[in-house]
Amino acid sequence: MSYAKQMLDTYPRDFNLDAGTLAATIDALSDCAQACTACADDCLSEEMVAELTKCIRTCLDCDDVCTATLRVVSRQTEYDANVTRAVLQACVAVCKSCGDECERHAGMHEHCRVCAEACRRCEQACNDLLAAMK
Amino acid sequence: MSYAKQMLDTYPRDFNLDAGTLAATIDALSDCAQACTACADDCLSEEMVAELTKCIRTCLDCDDVCTATLRVVSRQTEYDANVTRAVLQACVAVCKSCGDECERHAGMHEHCRVCAEACRRCEQACNDLLAAMK
Amino acid sequence: MSYAKQMLDTYPRDFNLDAGTLAATIDALSDCAQACTACADDCLSEEMVAELTKCIRTCLDCDDVCTATLRVVSRQTEYDANVTRAVLQACVAVCKSCGDECERHAGMHEHCRVCAEACRRCEQACNDLLAAMK
Amino acid sequence: MSYAKQMLDTYPRDFNLDAGTLAATIDALSDCAQACTACADDCLSEEMVAELTKCIRTCLDCDDVCTATLRVVSRQTEYDANVTRAVLQACVAVCKSCGDECERHAGMHEHCRVCAEACRRCEQACNDLLAAMK
Repeated sequence: MSYAKQMLDTYPRDFNLDAGTLAATIDALSDCAQACTACADDCLSEEMVAELTKCIRTCLDCDDVCTATLRVVSRQTEYDANVTRAVLQACVAVCKSCGDECERHAGMHEHCRVCAEACRRCEQACNDLLAAMK
Repeated sequence: MSYAKQMLDTYPRDFNLDAGTLAATIDALSDCAQACTACADDCLSEEMVAELTKCIRTCLDCDDVCTATLRVVSRQTEYDANVTRAVLQACVAVCKSCGDECERHAGMHEHCRVCAEACRRCEQACNDLLAAMK
Repeated sequence: MSYAKQMLDTYPRDFNLDAGTLAATIDALSDCAQACTACADDCLSEEMVAELTKCIRTCLDCDDVCTATLRVVSRQTEYDANVTRAVLQACVAVCKSCGDECERHAGMHEHCRVCAEACRRCEQACNDLLAAMK
Repeated sequence: MSYAKQMLDTYPRDFNLDAGTLAATIDALSDCAQACTACADDCLSEEMVAELTKCIRTCLDCDDVCTATLRVVSRQTEYDANVTRAVLQACVAVCKSCGDECERHAGMHEHCRVCAEACRRCEQACNDLLAAMK
């Protein structure tokens, strides 16, 4: 289990969001970023790599954006809702795109099936946090 | 001088965006990310650090989002305009927020003045690229 | 639970390391990176932030190095033991430094206590992986 | 031109390293990270991508480690020589590995030739900084 919830519970001030929802989003972002690092690498080791270049590219983007989003939402100091919202919306867009692409290969490559699941859960978690911000 | 333009010129396929605009955005993102790393650290070494916590936090966010955006726009393979647009919009939001906060301290701290300039140029460069995408 | 073990089990080729040890290291790196993001931010919200600047700085370094290490060890394609070893050694150094600093504040700040635990576990996991590489 | 030297010149305290050497290393790290992002992506768009998987993997590692190193050496607050040294040594190892691999393809792919140059310059800059630390 990650330290996300424990770290939120020890934050020295109040913050606006529900700690449980926030910790779940943090974990989903972290899990999705790692799954994307691994899926891009798995694709690179497939014999049919030439047919997986879109999957590799979208996994690299998803990894980078999830990692940045993870850091932004892990910070509570001087919370800026406009920034958090725009970053979460970008993360939803890239998780959707990566989830769609991985799903296309899910029948043939088990790593794409698992990565698609990670992307779907992360997209949902980011949408849940966006809803909780309203 | 960075390798951004040279690397775009050696890309093996066509891509949709103007190489000059794209290279200028890549350089602005790279410069802004580094200025934010340094400004957060400069603030941390100021005696009045307690009055600079918002500046540190927004610099950390700006650094992370610029770094992710830099990577996304540096990739041309299987370009997805929806993803690029959402990521650039998030970057504009965070550069605006960080530029505003740094500017508030620009009179007292030279590093904030320089970082505000880096954020403004990066915000403009991202907006230029968004305009070029239409 | 993360996808690290599942992603290793679906890698399309053989790899040299034990999947269980590797997945445990990946999870420890991921957890430590997030704890460090949060601890730096928690420190930034403490009234006595001026006494925590070393803790913030070392948490930022530890976050960055753990994130890079997490990505390097998540990749199996064309494994280069020299690179993996040097990166793990750098990660051990920064986890040791950050764990020591957080431990100094553990009695006063619960977030530093939790973060010190994350750093110690990550340092141990990196050392375990280094040992398994021999 | 980057803001690296300007940001070092506005740091509010003394620091142990020569600002010129440090700024040159920061710029080399930043340039190398971006060249590696681009070279991995260029390789992904080559028809012969299956023969470039090692190049892609080593570029991804080099990108991640250069980005982490760039951030660590951009920070002067509470400088820890042991950490900086270990991180620079890891960066030298990965720049060497990536430079060697890119050089193997330099005759056939111009992006690999440019990226190899970026890696060699970064490796040299990190070694220069390591020498200046003694």
